[in-house]
Amino acid sequence: MNIILTLRVLGALLLFLAGALLLPIPVSLFYQDGAATSFLLASATSLLAGCGLYLGCRSSLDLSIREGFAIVTFGWTFFALFGALPFLFSGAIPSYLDAFFETMSGFTTTGSTILTDIEAMPASLLLWRSMTQWFGGMGIIVLSLAILPMLGVGGMQLFKAEVPGPTADRLKPRIQDTAKLLWGVYFLLTTIEVLLLMAGNMSLFDAVNHAFTTMATGGFSTRNASLAAFDSAYIDGVVTLFMFLAGVNFSLHYLGLRGRFVDYVRNEEFRFYLALAVSGIALIMLFNAGSAYPSFWDNLRYTAFQLVSILTTTGFGTADYELWPVLCQYLLVIAMFVGGCAGSTGGGIKVARMLLLAKHAQVQLFRLIHPRAVRLVKLGERAVDKEVMQSILGFFALYMAVFVLASFIMAATGMDLVSAGGSVIATLSNIGPGLGSVGPIDNFAHVPAVGKVTLALCMLLGRLELFTVLVLVFPTFWRK
Amino acid sequence: MNIILTLRVLGALLLFLAGALLLPIPVSLFYQDGAATSFLLASATSLLAGCGLYLGCRSSLDLSIREGFAIVTFGWTFFALFGALPFLFSGAIPSYLDAFFETMSGFTTTGSTILTDIEAMPASLLLWRSMTQWFGGMGIIVLSLAILPMLGVGGMQLFKAEVPGPTADRLKPRIQDTAKLLWGVYFLLTTIEVLLLMAGNMSLFDAVNHAFTTMATGGFSTRNASLAAFDSAYIDGVVTLFMFLAGVNFSLHYLGLRGRFVDYVRNEEFRFYLALAVSGIALIMLFNAGSAYPSFWDNLRYTAFQLVSILTTTGFGTADYELWPVLCQYLLVIAMFVGGCAGSTGGGIKVARMLLLAKHAQVQLFRLIHPRAVRLVKLGERAVDKEVMQSILGFFALYMAVFVLASFIMAATGMDLVSAGGSVIATLSNIGPGLGSVGPIDNFAHVPAVGKVTLALCMLLGRLELFTVLVLVFPTFWRK
Repeated sequence: MNIILTLRVLGALLLFLAGALLLPIPVSLFYQDGAATSFLLASATSLLAGCGLYLGCRSSLDLSIREGFAIVTFGWTFFALFGALPFLFSGAIPSYLDAFFETMSGFTTTGSTILTDIEAMPASLLLWRSMTQWFGGMGIIVLSLAILPMLGVGGMQLFKAEVPGPTADRLKPRIQDTAKLLWGVYFLLTTIEVLLLMAGNMSLFDAVNHAFTTMATGGFSTRNASLAAFDSAYIDGVVTLFMFLAGVNFSLHYLGLRGRFVDYVRNEEFRFYLALAVSGIALIMLFNAGSAYPSFWDNLRYTAFQLVSILTTTGFGTADYELWPVLCQYLLVIAMFVGGCAGSTGGGIKVARMLLLAKHAQVQLFRLIHPRAVRLVKLGERAVDKEVMQSILGFFALYMAVFVLASFIMAATGMDLVSAGGSVIATLSNIGPGLGSVGPIDNFAHVPAVGKVTLALCMLLGRLELFTVLVLVFPTFWRK
Repeated sequence: MNIILTLRVLGALLLFLAGALLLPIPVSLFYQDGAATSFLLASATSLLAGCGLYLGCRSSLDLSIREGFAIVTFGWTFFALFGALPFLFSGAIPSYLDAFFETMSGFTTTGSTILTDIEAMPASLLLWRSMTQWFGGMGIIVLSLAILPMLGVGGMQLFKAEVPGPTADRLKPRIQDTAKLLWGVYFLLTTIEVLLLMAGNMSLFDAVNHAFTTMATGGFSTRNASLAAFDSAYIDGVVTLFMFLAGVNFSLHYLGLRGRFVDYVRNEEFRFYLALAVSGIALIMLFNAGSAYPSFWDNLRYTAFQLVSILTTTGFGTADYELWPVLCQYLLVIAMFVGGCAGSTGGGIKVARMLLLAKHAQVQLFRLIHPRAVRLVKLGERAVDKEVMQSILGFFALYMAVFVLASFIMAATGMDLVSAGGSVIATLSNIGPGLGSVGPIDNFAHVPAVGKVTLALCMLLGRLELFTVLVLVFPTFWRK
């Protein structure tokens, strides 16, 4: 481990954050919400810390895989620590722990909030809150790869450590070009959603905020009632569509935007994801028809929105699903574990891993009947490497272990079993709202300090898909 | 698939059951409980069906692995179907579905009951109920291997399909000899427990019943209040010890009885199992100390009993753990998934699988830091075959899939989420009591018919460790 080099790159990332912190200032001045100096101060703090680290730690820029893990893990932690400053400086969130929780929830696109009255917040802080999600969605380090040429040498290590999914697609041989293309697609889809939302009579401010948090599958809203505040079937429909799109591998969108729509259909993970969404909506509609929503169109509107919101780990709400029949809640809990596709902005275990697990189980059963037959696990037409399967086994085991351990800590803070498990899965899968006392109409303000730190760690573990963070606990990681 | 051969062996197993059904008759005559003719009738029915199948289906006895799976799966189903007859014929359980549920719960050593007043049952039926567990514990097909020479040729197939755990130990080159030794150890330990229980002023009848169901990690009792009815610290201690022993690999007991005690300590799975039990007891005692049990000895007595009862999947109760602090309940739920050691009579995922999963995850993390290092997953001093790891991955995925699917069906019958999940884990891990409406002080009488069939299937899937049953759903399984 080259700690000097790691600190230097972390310094560069803080400089990047210092720039990002200036962006909400014009909005603050326009709305005269009084938060501009807080942003300036936060930016200056980041700049100072960044300059100190970048100039103080001189080193060659030859990143190995170890520095990649450390930079991404600590980089995200730094983003949350420094990104929380405007909330603190402005007094909008008086507790630094709460501000840190909210910012980590933002960058990791979780969407859990400690705010009890969102609408009382200054506009520029709301925008910053949505921006953290937008930056975190496609990956802030991927973005810095696209913009900062200095990270070129070890870019692939950083890319692999940050981009979700068991396999990372490279669209171009140079990782910087891949990063640019992914961010380009992301930007384009966000812009289209802004326009479509404005066509539904949403203000520019609300449209930008919600497009940011939809495309990031984040789920922060500018309203206390989330999207239910707009009460528009059109807006619900647009957001449902874009949440679904945000849960798709962005490499497919890149190909789709170039006219290669057939690639969607050819992609097995996409087909499975689509099938999951459609069958989930159909099943929940079936059980909701008798009770919650007698009208077919209401049923479709609220069910499709909620299932896609949970499946893609966005976490927007238009209905209190804890009032739905037990079976519907059960299906939503399953969806919480699944999550979006690999290479999407969604969290969770990921559709590809679930699909490969199912196929692996099938092959294992087949082998019992035909012990000498050779049958490989395939995704699409390609055989999946044994190493990938082993890594998925490790991921699955670690996911369950983290879930069990973190739920235990949450229960130890005095939560009931459903809320403890619900708060962990909501943060570990980067969804946002959970169950019980942290359900869709509640918030995380009442969670004790130990619980907030645990959940913030779960968000980070979930967003960086466990391995990147967990390797740091090995003593051999730090040895040279 | 040779269906004729399968039916012939199933016929032989029914003949075996016909013999077993005669055993409670002397007890019935002694207590004059009026159930003797029911047993005679049930035995005659089994005899008739067995003779019909055995004589009607003539075939060579060359078992392949496929017939092994079919014989074990259908053999166990037949045992439950015919073993239920005395309950039905005597009128003690008027519904055949209920009688089937109770008998399946017996043979699979689950211990879930539909009886609302156990003490009202005739003595011989209570004994038969405990006997089903005792037969099922070490494996009724393993027993028939030890007794019936006709199964010699394909015995290994049957043995592997019935004995739990990722790896089956052979104590002797001939599988019949291994079966005899295992049953010998089982018989010996059961006898010792009978004597120790009688030394605590338990009647011979109660002592035999409870020794049967302890050694089988079954959990059926002759009393409505389970072992709490005896209210004796000595009896609780004896049962705790023997539940713990029943959760150990019986190959180790065989070596231990021959004086090789060091083999216990050398066995990594045993050490991990011991560590789990001790740390589980210590943790729960810690949280119980403040509320449920102020006295240290009471705390130790009730906590050790309950944790070992759940961890070994026995399911005896001396306390209503749903009244314990949430954290204690949480730890018990984790223990429900773990289960006993491989080669024990306990259910669950098994300690060995959990241990290997944890080690695998560790190796995966290590590889990320040292991509070129070769580090194998080891159990004790032996490297674990990659095929075994792949099979564990398959097992884990299937376990979760069955859990999710079966919980969904249970929720669809109208159960709340905790009871639905609790009833499935209680049966799939062969524990007995679950959570919520099927908790330790409740029973399964109120579960709707669809739910009872689903849970009975879960018991079978759990006892035969999924693969043996699930291969039968493949169409290619049935092709020749």
